Order: sequence, then C-alpha cells, then structure tokens
Amino acid sequence: MTSKPEIGFCGLGAMGFGMATHLVKQGYSVTGFDVYQPSLDRFKAAGGIPSTSLSDSAKDKSFYIVMVASAQQAQPALFDQDGIVNALPKHATLLLCSTVPSAYAQSVEKELVDIGRSDVFFIDAPVSGGAGRAADGTLSIMAGASEAALEKGKWLLDELSAPSKLFIVNGGIGAGSNMKMVHQVLAAIHILALNEAYGFAARLGLNGKDVFDAVVGSTGWSWMFENRSQRTLKEDYFPGASAVTIILKDTGIITSMSRSVGFPATLCSIAEQVYFSALDRGWGANDDAGLVRLWTLEPVASIQSMLSAEEKKTRLQLVVDLLTGIHLVSAAESISLAKHVDIPLPQLYELACDAAGGSTMFKNAGEKLIEILDGKADGSGKVLGGYTEKLRIAVNEAQSIKCPVYLGTGALNLLLQTGTTLSLASLLKCYGAQ
Amino acid sequence: MTSKPEIGFCGLGAMGFGMATHLVKQGYSVTGFDVYQPSLDRFKAAGGIPSTSLSDSAKDKSFYIVMVASAQQAQPALFDQDGIVNALPKHATLLLCSTVPSAYAQSVEKELVDIGRSDVFFIDAPVSGGAGRAADGTLSIMAGASEAALEKGKWLLDELSAPSKLFIVNGGIGAGSNMKMVHQVLAAIHILALNEAYGFAARLGLNGKDVFDAVVGSTGWSWMFENRSQRTLKEDYFPGASAVTIILKDTGIITSMSRSVGFPATLCSIAEQVYFSALDRGWGANDDAGLVRLWTLEPVASIQSMLSAEEKKTRLQLVVDLLTGIHLVSAAESISLAKHVDIPLPQLYELACDAAGGSTMFKNAGEKLIEILDGKADGSGKVLGGYTEKLRIAVNEAQSIKCPVYLGTGALNLLLQTGTTLSLASLLKCYGAQ
Repeated sequence: MTSKPEIGFCGLGAMGFGMATHLVKQGYSVTGFDVYQPSLDRFKAAGGIPSTSLSDSAKDKSFYIVMVASAQQAQPALFDQDGIVNALPKHATLLLCSTVPSAYAQSVEKELVDIGRSDVFFIDAPVSGGAGRAADGTLSIMAGASEAALEKGKWLLDELSAPSKLFIVNGGIGAGSNMKMVHQVLAAIHILALNEAYGFAARLGLNGKDVFDAVVGSTGWSWMFENRSQRTLKEDYFPGASAVTIILKDTGIITSMSRSVGFPATLCSIAEQVYFSALDRGWGANDDAGLVRLWTLEPVASIQSMLSAEEKKTRLQLVVDLLTGIHLVSAAESISLAKHVDIPLPQLYELACDAAGGSTMFKNAGEKLIEILDGKADGSGKVLGGYTEKLRIAVNEAQSIKCPVYLGTGALNLLLQTGTTLSLASLLKCYGAQ
Repeated sequence: MTSKPEIGFCGLGAMGFGMATHLVKQGYSVTGFDVYQPSLDRFKAAGGIPSTSLSDSAKDKSFYIVMVASAQQAQPALFDQDGIVNALPKHATLLLCSTVPSAYAQSVEKELVDIGRSDVFFIDAPVSGGAGRAADGTLSIMAGASEAALEKGKWLLDELSAPSKLFIVNGGIGAGSNMKMVHQVLAAIHILALNEAYGFAARLGLNGKDVFDAVVGSTGWSWMFENRSQRTLKEDYFPGASAVTIILKDTGIITSMSRSVGFPATLCSIAEQVYFSALDRGWGANDDAGLVRLWTLEPVASIQSMLSAEEKKTRLQLVVDLLTGIHLVSAAESISLAKHVDIPLPQLYELACDAAGGSTMFKNAGEKLIEILDGKADGSGKVLGGYTEKLRIAVNEAQSIKCPVYLGTGALNLLLQTGTTLSLASLLKCYGAQ
C-alpha cells in the first residue's frame, strides 16, 4: 500500500464524494478539500483526510483531481494565490473532471504555461454516469490531453472508470470537454422529452405506469426515460437525484458554445427555454423528472385511465411516436455538433449508445448518420417518411387537446424542412453539417 | 332608402356587432341572429332587427353575412335543417367572414353544390382590423370567390372595408382564407414577440415606457407591438380587447394547415406552444398583451430602472435587436407559406405592410424576399450577418440572466442554419421555399 501515490481532491459534492471515497477504498491516501464542513466530516468518516486549505490539499500531491461544479468555481480554486496550482509539486498530474466549456479547459492549459507551470501534466477529463457509478469507480470518462499527460494519468482514469468506459478523445485539451458537451446534447433533450411524453400522456388520460411499460422496449426508449421514470412514477422530486439546475448548466454550455461557432442547436435551445421557465416557477432545486408538473399536477402514476383497451393502445402509440421522432432528431443534432467541433464520430457513437444519452433511435439512426457525415453513404434514401408522418399525427393530437409539445413540434418542423426528400442527408443539412 | 337590400347577419360578437350596426347606420335593414340574448337586445337598441331563429334571419334575404367564431360554429348554422342555407332565397349572396381554414371554406362551396344550392353566390371573405374598424366600416377584407359571386357581393364588401383595404385574392374560394392565414402568421408571432421583448426588458431592469419609446420608430417596430403596448403599459388584460384564445384559434389554423401541406411553420409553432402554456395558467380569456406575466409579475410600467443612461441605452438596444431578428424571420415564414399555398406575394406585401401583421422588418425585407421567390433576384447577398450577430448578442444576454426567449432562440437558430452564406436565399431554404 505504501507504494500508492497520495492524491489531492477538490470538490466533495455528490459526484466528487463518490469518486474520492472510491479511491480511499482502493487504498489510496486521499486529501479532500471542500468549502462545506459536513462534507469534510463525512469524508473523514469514510477514511479520507479532510482539508480546509486548498494549498494543504495540493502540497506534495503528485496527483490531483478537481471535481467542482463549474468553470467559475474551478478558476479561483486552481489559480488563486493560495490555490491548488501554486501548491502542486513539480511534474504533478492534474485532472479537471468538472463539466466545463472546452474553451475553459484550453484556457487552463494556457494559464499553466503563462505562469511558468507547464511542467504540470494537465488532463481535461469530464465524467458521466451519476453518483452511484462515481462511488463504484465505474464512470464513463472522456479524456483529452497531451500524450505525455495521458501516460502519467492513465492509471488514475482507469481507477475511476469502468473498463470499457474510458474514452481517450483525440484532439488534446478541450477534446474531452467537447465530447462530454456533445453527449449532453442528447441528455438535455431527452430529459425534457420524457417529461413532455409523460405530460402529453397524462393529458391523453393515460396512467404513467402504462406509459413506462409501452415505452421501454419500444423505439421511444431512452436511457433518460427509463432512469427518470423511477422518480417520475413516485414523484421523487424533492430534491430527487438530479436538479434542474444541473442539466441547465450543461445545456448552457452547449447552446452558448453552439452559438459561438454558428451551430443551430435547435432542440437543445428549445429545451433550455423550458428549463428557464421551470426555474421561474422555483423548481430549480427539484429533480428534473418533476418537469412533468408543467403539464399535470396530478401524479402520473395515480391517473385513473377510463379508456378502452384499444383506445389506450392507440394513445400509448402516440406517446411512443412523439419520443421516437424527438430522439431521431436529437441524434442528428448531437452528431452534427460533434462533426462541427471535430469530435471523432465513431467514438461518440460507442460512448453514447451505452451512456446517459443513449436511445433506441440514436443506436438505430446514429450509425447511418455518421456514415453520411464520413462520406461513406449519401443518405439520400427517403427513410424519414414514416417517422415524420407518425410524429405529425402525435402533434396534431396534442394540438387538438391544447397540450404543449415543445420538442415534438420543434422536431417535426425540422423533419418537414427535409421537404419531399425525407432523407437523412437533408436532415443533416438543417444542422449545416452536410 | 327603400331600394337598399335587406341583409341577414349571423354572429353579433365583438366584430360581428360592429359590422352589423355599421350597416344599420348606413341605412340598411339588418336582421341579426345570435345565441346570446343580451347581444340581440343591444342590436335592437342600435336599430337592428333581432332574430332568435336562423331561418327567420335568412328568409327573403338576398344578402347574408356569417361572422361566427369558427368553422365549428359556422357548419351547423349554415347547414342544419333549420339553418341559414335552407332559408336563403334563390340566388342569394352569402359572405363567410369568419377566420376558418381554407379547406373549410372549400367544403362549404362543395356542400352547396351537393345539396342543390349552387345558385347561392358564396364568398370566402375573412376580415382583419379589430372591433373599432369593424364598427367604422373600415376593415381589411381578403375575399376569394367566383367572378360572378364577387360581382354580386362587391358593393357589400365595399361597405364593410376601407377604400384601399379590400383585397380580392385570385384563386376562388379558399384564397381569401389562405391570405388571412398567411397574414396571421405575422400576427401570431408578433404577439408573442412583444411579450417576450417586454419580459426580457423587465429582467434587464428596464421600464416598459422606455422600451416603448425605444422600439417605436426602430427596426424592432411592429403594428402589434405598438397596438398591444397600450394595454401592456396599463395592465389592461382583464379582459382587455383580444383574448389569448383568439390568436390561439388563428395559430391553430396556421400550424395544422402547415403540417398538412408539409410546411415547417417554425416560429408560429413555437408561439403556439407558449400560448398553450398560458391557457394552462388559466389566462385564456385575458388579453394576449398579458402574456408578459410569463416573465414578470411586476407591472412593466412600474419598474424602477437603476441603470445609468449609457447602460440603459445598451440594454434597450438588445430588446430592439431581439424584436428585429424575430420579425426578420417571421417575414420569411409568412412569405414562404404564402408561396407554398400559392397566394399572390405582392398582394400579401401590400396588405400586410399596412395591417395588423405589419412590421418595419416585413416592410424592409419583404420586398426582397418576394423578388427572390419570384425569381427576380438570387438572394445570395451576405445580408444577414449583422442581424444574426445582434440577435446572437441579445440571446447570449438572455441566457446569462436565465430569461427564456422562445422566439429569439428559434429565430437565431434559423439564421444560424444559413451557415456562412448568411443570405436571404438560404433563409428561405429553411422553409423549403427555394
């Protein structure tokens, strides 16, 4: 055990606490800093070494992990006079695991050079997978850095991630953050989509449990749908497990980055506006599965369905079709953005199929979309007709019952933009990606 | 006076009452039907002949005007056994002035033939201009019909409309309704836009009166903005003058028609979803100027601005830029839909520039957009750069203060779709119109 290096850690929140204590369990000596005393107490109880000083947490640590909530928090923690970088020993390895704009990760790299600390091996390594997988050391990690830094830090990335879930993204610092961002396009859209679907279903007089059974295993499935349903069906929103403000932070990174590079993140932008409206209602700290309350205040699992078996089946299909259409377009949106910011597309596909952004439609259509963007298929086949028609019927129905379907109409209008071609190539053109 | 024909009238609501009593003032004998007794009493007091029977209101009337709220109301009024058509004399002239889907107007024409009443001279003649202009006989009217019917009914259309505001739309029955629909694309978007602008401004700490002064006379002006501001600045929403349900009815005609012909009515669809969310809050019967309450519950005219003169000027410009960008795209959306449904574009331009759908941007960009669609210009000039950049800055600012700008982001994403061409031709392609 004595041969294991000491590790410094900043940010013992839901994710960071799990990661840090996982390392403790693996036998590492981990010195953890947080501004919140109860977290330090919990960390001490779990066998960690608590620290109330950033300098102390970094002194003599050849390996250091930053897992704070945002770039705004990372910047002073890293670069203040009594911050992490000043205290790190020569040739230390520094992992930034927070979700930040890629431009921020690049600014850290530059600032290290500017202040004469280019000796630090810096790795841009955002994570995905939630608090449970953080504590198990089975996260998905998207890492970008110099080859030298990756060589230094690989063992630590391995400790934190599941065997097949460590993605080394080509492109150096910023590439990991861009991969995370592109993946979160799917997450940001799918979270609103599942709420829209449960809300639409409630207005159609469907019970949430029936919706769950109909969607799981259908083309409307998404990882987010299945994951959030556990809380939707129990109204476990206060606080639940993932606050609206968390997905809103990621959404903000996506849309502001997209605007700055001229990419139309259409569905993601729609989702962001609805998330803002949820903030306005004071729901920011509630679980994002509770957004269904924008559509219905009745618990969806308590809705007494008065429908005949046949009518129920017809209406459940509308809900499945709504989700299917949205997820088809979200696949095009994330993959087009990946192309725009030069993320390796097959790697995104491998990652997202089996992560929080996954969906049946991403799995089914994603491979084809990537082939088109890589020039291996022309994508002119008239394959969107059926999806468009089914989504059109779902949106018609929503309109007739005056039910807002923000993403459903947004997705449909993009599909309608393909005109009579009804081709994937035309859909990609809506994202300037062809 | 005895030579003036007797007129039958169905639907004495806000618009219909004004139209019918205007005809009374002009010396016509008008028999008015309504299901609401107080309206009949008011009509009698104004010199009209009230009727509680549709048959009686139509019997021996060579001219009949229907001004009910919707196609759903018009159908039984026209075609029930004891309805209007059965009672109309041979060769009567029938004006349908309600805003209805063009397909409905066409179905009336067909049903008249089917029941052996092809002798009726039927005119599809929706109106615009509000209750005040209805009562003055200065409405805008968009009329489509056979030449024979128009010859018969022209004098009556003239009585109801201002001299330059009677638009005979080529294309027969349905053409008038389509023209109205295309015009309402502008209205539906601009109504939400002005609320979004006042809401954004409130969040920026600007007083509504300053916003009014900055927008009127700027590129952000619209007829709707100026008209609704009178109520916005006084919180005159209960009931105000134009309920949310009214514009929602027109919006529904636009989006369902658009979906059925495969046209992506992108901004109009976004507006519709927000109107639905207002219904959910119980605001359907309130004036549509009250939608600003989605952003702020403080009266916008009472906001105490603490900003420096320079800061105020900068922020007011953001609001103007938001409106300008939205109105630029709404011009493209309405004109593209007009092209799609074969409405004469110069006539739309003439009508909308000087009606409720008017805006500075429609006036400025509309002529150019029409030239492109008519093949008289190629529209490849890089003219959208400045608008896109200004809208991008406004949307960035809205995001930084977590303020939803539904239309602002929707319009920006369409402008971003033009990619590096930044051309009007590319913008029209987003609507499949090129």
